[in-house]
Amino acid sequence: MITRMSELFLRTLRDDPADAEVPSHKLLIRAGYVRPVGPGLYSWLPLGLKVLRKIEKIVREEMDAIGGQEILFPALLPRGPYEATNRWTEYGDNLFRLQDRRANDYLLGPTHEEMFTLTVKGEYSSYKDFPLRLYQIQNKYRDEARPRAGILRGREFLMKDSYSFDVDDEGLEKAYRAHREAYQRIFDRLEVRYVIVSAVSGAMGGSASEEFLAESAVGEDTYVRCLESDYAANVEAVVTLVPDPIPVDGQPPATVYDTPGTPTIATLVDWANEADLPQFAGRTVTAADTLKNVLVKVREPGGEWELLAVGVPGDREVDDKRLGAALEPAEYALLDDADFARHPFLVKGYIGPKALQANGVRYLVDPRVVDGTSWITGADEQGRHVVGLVAGRDFTPDGTIEAAEVREGDPSPDGAGPLVAARGIEIGHVFQLGRKYTDAFSADVLGEDGKPVRLTMGSYGVGVSRLVAVIAEQQHDELGLRWPGSVAPFGVHVVIANKDAEARAGATELAGELDRVGIEVLLDDRQASPGVKFKDAELLGVPWIVVVGRGWADGVVELRNRFSGEKRDLPVADAAAEIAAAVR
Amino acid sequence: MITRMSELFLRTLRDDPADAEVPSHKLLIRAGYVRPVGPGLYSWLPLGLKVLRKIEKIVREEMDAIGGQEILFPALLPRGPYEATNRWTEYGDNLFRLQDRRANDYLLGPTHEEMFTLTVKGEYSSYKDFPLRLYQIQNKYRDEARPRAGILRGREFLMKDSYSFDVDDEGLEKAYRAHREAYQRIFDRLEVRYVIVSAVSGAMGGSASEEFLAESAVGEDTYVRCLESDYAANVEAVVTLVPDPIPVDGQPPATVYDTPGTPTIATLVDWANEADLPQFAGRTVTAADTLKNVLVKVREPGGEWELLAVGVPGDREVDDKRLGAALEPAEYALLDDADFARHPFLVKGYIGPKALQANGVRYLVDPRVVDGTSWITGADEQGRHVVGLVAGRDFTPDGTIEAAEVREGDPSPDGAGPLVAARGIEIGHVFQLGRKYTDAFSADVLGEDGKPVRLTMGSYGVGVSRLVAVIAEQQHDELGLRWPGSVAPFGVHVVIANKDAEARAGATELAGELDRVGIEVLLDDRQASPGVKFKDAELLGVPWIVVVGRGWADGVVELRNRFSGEKRDLPVADAAAEIAAAVR
Repeated sequence: MITRMSELFLRTLRDDPADAEVPSHKLLIRAGYVRPVGPGLYSWLPLGLKVLRKIEKIVREEMDAIGGQEILFPALLPRGPYEATNRWTEYGDNLFRLQDRRANDYLLGPTHEEMFTLTVKGEYSSYKDFPLRLYQIQNKYRDEARPRAGILRGREFLMKDSYSFDVDDEGLEKAYRAHREAYQRIFDRLEVRYVIVSAVSGAMGGSASEEFLAESAVGEDTYVRCLESDYAANVEAVVTLVPDPIPVDGQPPATVYDTPGTPTIATLVDWANEADLPQFAGRTVTAADTLKNVLVKVREPGGEWELLAVGVPGDREVDDKRLGAALEPAEYALLDDADFARHPFLVKGYIGPKALQANGVRYLVDPRVVDGTSWITGADEQGRHVVGLVAGRDFTPDGTIEAAEVREGDPSPDGAGPLVAARGIEIGHVFQLGRKYTDAFSADVLGEDGKPVRLTMGSYGVGVSRLVAVIAEQQHDELGLRWPGSVAPFGVHVVIANKDAEARAGATELAGELDRVGIEVLLDDRQASPGVKFKDAELLGVPWIVVVGRGWADGVVELRNRFSGEKRDLPVADAAAEIAAAVR
Repeated sequence: MITRMSELFLRTLRDDPADAEVPSHKLLIRAGYVRPVGPGLYSWLPLGLKVLRKIEKIVREEMDAIGGQEILFPALLPRGPYEATNRWTEYGDNLFRLQDRRANDYLLGPTHEEMFTLTVKGEYSSYKDFPLRLYQIQNKYRDEARPRAGILRGREFLMKDSYSFDVDDEGLEKAYRAHREAYQRIFDRLEVRYVIVSAVSGAMGGSASEEFLAESAVGEDTYVRCLESDYAANVEAVVTLVPDPIPVDGQPPATVYDTPGTPTIATLVDWANEADLPQFAGRTVTAADTLKNVLVKVREPGGEWELLAVGVPGDREVDDKRLGAALEPAEYALLDDADFARHPFLVKGYIGPKALQANGVRYLVDPRVVDGTSWITGADEQGRHVVGLVAGRDFTPDGTIEAAEVREGDPSPDGAGPLVAARGIEIGHVFQLGRKYTDAFSADVLGEDGKPVRLTMGSYGVGVSRLVAVIAEQQHDELGLRWPGSVAPFGVHVVIANKDAEARAGATELAGELDRVGIEVLLDDRQASPGVKFKDAELLGVPWIVVVGRGWADGVVELRNRFSGEKRDLPVADAAAEIAAAVR
């Protein structure tokens, strides 16, 4: 079927919408692919819907290829199952909640782990039924605090979510790898530039979790990568390269000094350099020579608040996200004045390992604080610090924690070189959930030995609607959108740029020939100037543009490639065949 | 791709689910097509989703064929547009309402007239842009008071809704006819038995409105039809066949009688027969000789309550739905004691035209109350009635109203014969909305004469997910489901009913041959008894079943038709070709 622009429900806009921030958002609106309906809510107009459906189809094909079976849940879900896993509460303001006419609680599904687990438990009962891979392609809902960037972060969005169920870890590992590879094929077919980054999967045991991030300067996710290797990770997931321990023998003893008015690292470093400390033999003291002890309180799910001290080199801040990820599923909070009042051994600005350990406070340090490292740190008295406090000799932490900030230039954990920071947009996530949800619902089946086996589970997601914006973001140029052939709304855009009736008829016939060989054709048959039509063709971004223009009189049409800008004349007689060959 | 039952996510159930009322609901659950998630909420398992998608595809093809352009709105919508048309309030408890984290109001879309009108207004501005036909296939939400019968009436359901926009009535009429014909093609392709019934479109002017009802004993919609013609209508839409007027001359004068203790029609008729009234010359008086005056109060939108009297022959009740439909968009209510106290001229049980008209009460009568008809009715005094009150002589109503009940045996409005009652399930609706929504949003475009033209609009719906249940309801038999080829989850169900390894291999090869010629094959390769497999095959309802069983040794397989039950043996060598020919 040929789509005629004279009939297509489409109006392109000359100007950028006022509230659009990122290029993909501006262009998708200007080109008439989507329209805003409310904050984070968009309607898909014909061209946008075509691209969305093509992406959906590719995702479906690759899921089917790894044995995924498609099912479909409602988006409107009862509270019960989400109460059982505590996600009804945990999701906080991000969850859309509502009541029905009988005042029963419902939610709009943000993701469906609970429902899939319950369904599998309801249907299957034997180890023989596994492995099992189920998926759905469905609208999800999240009440984002700041819906932004158009469909990059909407409040109603199309997602492919799949769930694997296995009776053993080996099965889970296989399912995980199958999904990971399927996602690589999906993003390759979509011609998306992406990296796979290690992601934190919480403190629930070393389950694997990786994110697929599309490379983009407007991405909300920061990650680090090593240009000398293929290492890439979310900041939360970066593991510190641990230096070798240093011999303790021969190091000078720890000495306490009066350091009046030095409650900050900067004032402390100034004092140390002015004091000309013998321990430093004339070299300049830096913040990296100090050990900063940050106090928080931590609460395990269902537990009581407990103090935790985090020791990091003074040249680094504690990174909230890394600390949070390291402590998960426990939550943490900063201490308030009442907390300090209750624990007088905590001398603000002068906290050291001694008082912490004497008072039984759990004390975790940055992995760089290896045995033999020597530190300037608090002496637990107002206006006093200790110099030359050696780890493993003068204090012994309870363990290490990945809470210090990650910086560009830090060594890559694989030792291949320095890390650089980059930004990306999350387009996929693979996650070995393990038994979190099957435990919550006691999802057991009969094992080969006749005993019950608890199922183990993975969850995997692809942001289908978001990918429309991601491709627009990565592929656009200053003239407009550019779509890879796999997802373009049309294969060829035929522009009639000649008012001659014969040229018009010839263009329509050419469109018909292309249609007959299975190429989707957009025919610009409008009464408009060639200039308007060319601008629209560039804005809409169909990868191949055919111009039936002045050359018609000489028996040629022009074929343009929207990506390379390359143009060439084709004799009318061969045009259909040549175009078909180029498009394929 | 061959689907192997050993891997398919499917468990059939031997017993009917406890809470299922109608056959389609029982069978779709037993056969593993859907599963309940909550009241009126269902998940689609693999087989159900396949059928749903095939119906969706047929609907899409037919909408595209009439020039429909597919777009897609969010289901989550802001309150504003629905406030503008008052539907935020009018929908009452049927609307799912919710708030976001900023306490802004949202709803889950029950239908999208507002959004389409605003979108068209936003994009288009000239008469040249029309006609325009837009549609979407999307989840809709309605908080039904009694979600019942499984997916026949769910609270989240898939619907195709389309909207036509035209600059004149002729265009609307064309769009209406195009949709009506497309719907006929859709339901014909789905092999659904249906009738098209006239539906009331409110009192907003004679806009056409018709419903497509699938014939079904479990349907919630009652309609009437004439077996001698193709007349069919919703009870609300039945127009009374009006008798000819009767000459007034020579009719005896009206006479008032003491009729103590006759506040009901039954007691009044008894009195009349005992009184041996000369007006009836010995024939028996029946309830049809009496005129019953029912008082209600009516309020136009934004107006005040006003009295309305409805006069109907005493042998008929006033039908709430017909009265409501006749009065729409006004609402009505019964009178309470305070109302009667405020209007002492209303003598309960003895209300007659005289007092009504003397006190300025609007008085509408059944169309059967034509000039010259003579009635026994109230005399507006306790215990008194008037006999021989002749319409057009003794009283003149303010008009007629279609409020009396419709009964089987009533004459069809087309005069072709009697009406019979039937039940159906609404599967489609076509509706000439006119300018209701374009007025609400001042949706004007520039006309050919340079002056603004208000757009006129139609709305059209098909219940896509409901159709899965409707087909199941109409086609099932006592053994299970039966799917027409156009929507069956598979073309052929191959049952391996022979443990012999060669037979097994042969069945798999046959499945492969069918797959290669484009037939979707379900292969029952499970380790189960032939009896279990046959029962499941009958329950699942694939239209053609191939049994590779005992006959294998003699070189034959059996082909069964699930509808006719017909079986025939096919030589193995020809089997694939013969089966392919049968399926096509």
